Amino acid sequence: MSGPADRSAPTPLVLTGNSRLVIIDVQDRLLAAIDGAEQVVARCELLARAAHRLGIPLAATDQNPAGIGPTTARLATLVPLRFSKVHFAASNQGDFLAWAAGGGTVLLCGTEAHICVLQTALGLTGLGLKVAVVVDAIGSRHPSDKAAALDRLRHHRVELVTAEMVVFEWLERYDRPEFKELLRLVK
Amino acid sequence: MSGPADRSAPTPLVLTGNSRLVIIDVQDRLLAAIDGAEQVVARCELLARAAHRLGIPLAATDQNPAGIGPTTARLATLVPLRFSKVHFAASNQGDFLAWAAGGGTVLLCGTEAHICVLQTALGLTGLGLKVAVVVDAIGSRHPSDKAAALDRLRHHRVELVTAEMVVFEWLERYDRPEFKELLRLVK
Amino acid sequence: MSGPADRSAPTPLVLTGNSRLVIIDVQDRLLAAIDGAEQVVARCELLARAAHRLGIPLAATDQNPAGIGPTTARLATLVPLRFSKVHFAASNQGDFLAWAAGGGTVLLCGTEAHICVLQTALGLTGLGLKVAVVVDAIGSRHPSDKAAALDRLRHHRVELVTAEMVVFEWLERYDRPEFKELLRLVK
Amino acid sequence: MSGPADRSAPTPLVLTGNSRLVIIDVQDRLLAAIDGAEQVVARCELLARAAHRLGIPLAATDQNPAGIGPTTARLATLVPLRFSKVHFAASNQGDFLAWAAGGGTVLLCGTEAHICVLQTALGLTGLGLKVAVVVDAIGSRHPSDKAAALDRLRHHRVELVTAEMVVFEWLERYDRPEFKELLRLVK
Repeated sequence: MSGPADRSAPTPLVLTGNSRLVIIDVQDRLLAAIDGAEQVVARCELLARAAHRLGIPLAATDQNPAGIGPTTARLATLVPLRFSKVHFAASNQGDFLAWAAGGGTVLLCGTEAHICVLQTALGLTGLGLKVAVVVDAIGSRHPSDKAAALDRLRHHRVELVTAEMVVFEWLERYDRPEFKELLRLVK
Repeated sequence: MSGPADRSAPTPLVLTGNSRLVIIDVQDRLLAAIDGAEQVVARCELLARAAHRLGIPLAATDQNPAGIGPTTARLATLVPLRFSKVHFAASNQGDFLAWAAGGGTVLLCGTEAHICVLQTALGLTGLGLKVAVVVDAIGSRHPSDKAAALDRLRHHRVELVTAEMVVFEWLERYDRPEFKELLRLVK
Repeated sequence: MSGPADRSAPTPLVLTGNSRLVIIDVQDRLLAAIDGAEQVVARCELLARAAHRLGIPLAATDQNPAGIGPTTARLATLVPLRFSKVHFAASNQGDFLAWAAGGGTVLLCGTEAHICVLQTALGLTGLGLKVAVVVDAIGSRHPSDKAAALDRLRHHRVELVTAEMVVFEWLERYDRPEFKELLRLVK
Repeated sequence: MSGPADRSAPTPLVLTGNSRLVIIDVQDRLLAAIDGAEQVVARCELLARAAHRLGIPLAATDQNPAGIGPTTARLATLVPLRFSKVHFAASNQGDFLAWAAGGGTVLLCGTEAHICVLQTALGLTGLGLKVAVVVDAIGSRHPSDKAAALDRLRHHRVELVTAEMVVFEWLERYDRPEFKELLRLVK
């Protein structure tokens, strides 16, 4: 390729394979009350499957699993690495933080958008990590709480993306062997 | 805890116990005309009760109380410290300002969103204080005025939060003695 | 007054009497096609009357008045100072610009939000003037064009206000002789 | 003209004739699934015709044309310069990038808003080019994806404009020979 791109090494604004995926607190007893829970789980699953196919590291968190159970089965089988937590912000848990700080953009999805997802995003951002939140893969009990969470994430300059954006940015081009398989997952 | 958080002392982006709460002009004669007044009062009450439980300082303002009466009784009993005011911006009243500048983020709720809440938020921000406005605990007569107030607060980089965000950020973790009591208040 | 306000002279974020008001192209032949024209004219009239009462300078512009007629009569009587223009951006007209640059925040209202109001706001902003646009006193033929204009004004950090915000910020406090008269105009 | 504009040479915030127009992937097999496809094509056509009339350079891209066909006929006749692409981001194609970096603001329209338009806008922005996206001339299969794309473009400070804004900013004033002809196209 010729042109300006050859002359410098700008930071790409699109997402790259140098990402890691975190599914926050998608636990059955919480899910039952979440607005749009079915879409949240489906989008988390799409991201987890694409991450597997493309070799992107992924993990999940469980809030108080002794009290309210683990990550829902449909996702748990896809995400062997799990962190149990006491703080609403996973970024306050040392074991999670050591993993999350291991490199690349941290992509967050899960529940609740305005509590644990928000606090984790702000915690990681405050520590200087690059964070993106997948807006169609997060949920709260009330839609207005999710909207307020997105507003506050924007305020703190956290990047907001969709699951489809993520998959197509990880892919970059249509002539890759994984393209058709992931396109089927998206649709 | 180990990890990056140990290596530096970043400013937390989530709210902390180092906050103070101000209820602006929630007076019966104004309330009668406010869109969503019942929710505004309920959310102010939730915040006042949580502030009491967690030892957060709180105060209220009364616009022209001789003319239009004091803070509504439901809140007045929870907020002994009150400032009477002549300016729409409480930040122009020296006694209020001395208290508000006493430390921590100033959390604002009350009415009207686009007049006294907005002017107070901009006044305090212009003086260099950190301000957050609780979006589900403020109101105006017309919803479009509240929306315009939020838009202008964003323009001036004032943080916008919800009452539930505030309570869960003050709490930080689920294994505290106050958690269950405050969870009941939230629901 | 005592407190932090005494120790420095911060730039106020609220509007002050150091403002000037510009009504852009509110001409009958354009108005007929404007969405919400009645509100646009009513809000422009409120602002013009408040400006008169408080001694705020004001002017209006007429796009191609030979072709499409002058500012509508209801406003024309309140605004003796008028600038005829050929450019969509009034800021490209030397006589207007000399007046607009005479001091204080330039408050814009009128039509069309996404053409002449937008271009004038961007032109003045690009020249370093402080500009605010009154969102409930501007209009376009299609609501989506007005929304896109507001979005673009935000992008360029132009302040967005409402007519009521302006009046209460000009007034500052309720114990002024003009308060009751202007309160009647607002309602 | 006299006044402040004479004293400096500020960067204009309105668009100027120093622009170039890019129509991204408006191909029939993609269009069939796009929400609001008819408006997208009509607005792209308006921009292409105005660009021709005013001497603005323009080009189009075709994603995998061997697989899904070329730019739709209605636009293809107006845009002889076309770039075939393999990457979702046209900015990753050297031939396109050399042309796009040839000067002025790069105006983007076409489909899908949240994949190829978004990635191209972010790619060009990351390389330091000035980019504007025409919001009423882009589309995705789902409206929520387009909305998320606009949100992310705002995050990265990409300018969002409408087709009508573009035409009136290119024109600058009503007393030009092209004004009436372009006004007819707009309406």
